[in-house]
Amino acid sequence: MPVRIIALRTFDVRFPTSDFLDGSDAMNPDPDYSAATVVLETSEPGLEGHGLTFTIGRGNDLCCRAIETLAERVVGRDLDELAGAMGAFWRGLVSDSQLRWLGPEKGVTHMATAALVNAVWDLLGRRAGKPVWKLVSDMPPRAQVELVDFRHISDAITKEEALERLEALAATRAEREAEIREHGYPAYVTSAGWLGYEDDKIRRLCRKSLAEGWTRFKMKVGSDPENDLRRGRIVREEIGPDGSLMLDANQVWDVGEAIAHMKPLAELDPKWIEEPTSPDDILGHARIRREIRPIGVATGEHCHNRVMWKQFFQADAIDYAQIDGCRLAGLNEVFAVLLMAAKYGIPVCPHAGGVGLCEYVQHFSILDYVCVSGSLEGRMTEYAEHLHEHFVHPVKVRDGRYRMPESPGFSVEMKAHSRESYTFPTGSAWKDRS
Amino acid sequence: MPVRIIALRTFDVRFPTSDFLDGSDAMNPDPDYSAATVVLETSEPGLEGHGLTFTIGRGNDLCCRAIETLAERVVGRDLDELAGAMGAFWRGLVSDSQLRWLGPEKGVTHMATAALVNAVWDLLGRRAGKPVWKLVSDMPPRAQVELVDFRHISDAITKEEALERLEALAATRAEREAEIREHGYPAYVTSAGWLGYEDDKIRRLCRKSLAEGWTRFKMKVGSDPENDLRRGRIVREEIGPDGSLMLDANQVWDVGEAIAHMKPLAELDPKWIEEPTSPDDILGHARIRREIRPIGVATGEHCHNRVMWKQFFQADAIDYAQIDGCRLAGLNEVFAVLLMAAKYGIPVCPHAGGVGLCEYVQHFSILDYVCVSGSLEGRMTEYAEHLHEHFVHPVKVRDGRYRMPESPGFSVEMKAHSRESYTFPTGSAWKDRS
Repeated sequence: MPVRIIALRTFDVRFPTSDFLDGSDAMNPDPDYSAATVVLETSEPGLEGHGLTFTIGRGNDLCCRAIETLAERVVGRDLDELAGAMGAFWRGLVSDSQLRWLGPEKGVTHMATAALVNAVWDLLGRRAGKPVWKLVSDMPPRAQVELVDFRHISDAITKEEALERLEALAATRAEREAEIREHGYPAYVTSAGWLGYEDDKIRRLCRKSLAEGWTRFKMKVGSDPENDLRRGRIVREEIGPDGSLMLDANQVWDVGEAIAHMKPLAELDPKWIEEPTSPDDILGHARIRREIRPIGVATGEHCHNRVMWKQFFQADAIDYAQIDGCRLAGLNEVFAVLLMAAKYGIPVCPHAGGVGLCEYVQHFSILDYVCVSGSLEGRMTEYAEHLHEHFVHPVKVRDGRYRMPESPGFSVEMKAHSRESYTFPTGSAWKDRS
Repeated sequence: MPVRIIALRTFDVRFPTSDFLDGSDAMNPDPDYSAATVVLETSEPGLEGHGLTFTIGRGNDLCCRAIETLAERVVGRDLDELAGAMGAFWRGLVSDSQLRWLGPEKGVTHMATAALVNAVWDLLGRRAGKPVWKLVSDMPPRAQVELVDFRHISDAITKEEALERLEALAATRAEREAEIREHGYPAYVTSAGWLGYEDDKIRRLCRKSLAEGWTRFKMKVGSDPENDLRRGRIVREEIGPDGSLMLDANQVWDVGEAIAHMKPLAELDPKWIEEPTSPDDILGHARIRREIRPIGVATGEHCHNRVMWKQFFQADAIDYAQIDGCRLAGLNEVFAVLLMAAKYGIPVCPHAGGVGLCEYVQHFSILDYVCVSGSLEGRMTEYAEHLHEHFVHPVKVRDGRYRMPESPGFSVEMKAHSRESYTFPTGSAWKDRS
């Protein structure tokens, strides 16, 4: 009996995080962490697919509506057919010529595509009884390369090259899987260093994280230089010389400013500066990187498609690739970027935090290690503490590492009660505020 | 008595152009030329501002809704205050941190910003009794540079450099204005070469355009190479060796394919190949340009913000800059790109066609000539025949040149009857189809 997708519902879920300046940074002073959430209903009772795209408040409704616009491409589809044709499904979604005009492959429509693509992957994982990382890791290399649209990136990587890479690692996948199951995947923590936090709170949160076993910390910079340095010294003092410290400027500087501002911050011995300037500025990142060595350059949470990623690699513009599971159009496009990153030798350190992002990206990091790069060197996945309580299968971290997710699907199913209470503006959490 | 903006209305206007394959190309087989249209009402009876962003059908509603999301930033504003603060107004629109996440500065939200920014310019032009090109041309250089947000482009051009350029041309503005008023602004025509047209129709339309005084023609390529060559030979045969022929691939090729496909098409002696690959691929365009000389490379209708434009210039990636007045976030950002193009010596040949785009871009071309580049060399503005009848003040062309628009505002006010009949899906033009 074939199982079909029979309906699609969206939820405009927003959390009032701006009340506490959680997530505040130099570009985003007052984010309300939000999720344009999609639920796919199927003809099999109890089997649903869950996806989301992350936003920071206003405009979350636009993403919901864009997901609904794509509904016709998924409602009515047979799950078993989809399972064997996810590459074609993905290409169909991004190639709708009328919708393509609105990007192409960027902005609201691309983020909506991410939610939908990942919801289908969630569904396929649940149907197979496997977490998504495992579902994809169990695919043979020949099937994996079919997930990727090589259009517009074939000058950086061909299907044949990708296949060769995947095949070279295929025999040893089980070893790496076992290793992650035993030891977890390396992570770093961002929760201490939001720009809106007072010095005392930063110090307190550092100590708390150290006590929990964290050794890698990220803090926000991009306010005035003295403030950045003072806060950075607090973190460095707390974590000691052996701790890893990453800085994140959230795009506020021009190219010249980034270079100038990073000079005094070198004293903090940072591993990377993240988003030193506009996320579209490939050549700017390349110049900054050349000028602030040995500090690394990282970017990616706003890098909107595989063509932009291709150029960041080709231009030697970055040291770390911070892919985002719903800025890129879901797993298929993430997989394309993992392949290019491995070829160019750039470690993938996914962007997380927000709401649902940690839940998503743990799958990508494991997939990268098990199938694509085969390496943990220089790799770590972002972690932030907020909002995990709203998920049915929240991430688990221990001693600064993500524990392997084992529940079927993509881990982003929100608890029904949370989804409803925080639906904007009608849910109880919002109604009570007015 | 101050005049205020008191309300904002949007209209999801769509024309069923896919019925006749007008506008069909290799990437867009069945566009329904559409406009997310905004009307600003003011406290002065009869004074309205009109703006639009162009799309090709599905998703036009997303742009309308995004415009509505921005309403709070314009409704209530005093027109005279806005007139002196359009730079700050623009920066406020693109800096809404929550909405910025959905781009940043790209996709649906950026296109919506374009419609709104240009609607305000339309309003200011009407209030001053001047077409927008004239309103801005009459501003002193010091006021013009304040329109531009130099954030993230200061490594390519500073406010001081921009000012110097504008001041150098200020004394001779009147001469260039008089010249355009007398002779018009050079244009080329795209109406003959849509990919869905039969050979006979192409030939017939070429002859019609030649008879009307056109000497510059663009045709679509990117179907199979033999088909492209056959159609190209027809156009070249009709327009003769002295006519200018431009080719447009609408992004369908990968970098290597573009280079390979252009080799046989060199026989057509094309002036440029437009959108040979992904519009995000700065490095790809640069490589194509190096390899297919002396054929020029053009792009821009999907180039989404000033940071991308900056890199196309810095990387020597293009020979012609095809700015779009509603892909970029309206006049302010267009002005930034005009300044950079002039500095890097790249002629601006705006993208038009669609619906309302010709009406928009004539203002930008004149502004470029009068104030920014001071040159017509290598410059021409696109023209397509469709849908001008729906505008209150449609463009006028004669002998292959745009005539100077003289009516107050931005020329994109749609006739109320057209706006209502083609509103999707409730207008009479759509209801009658079902």
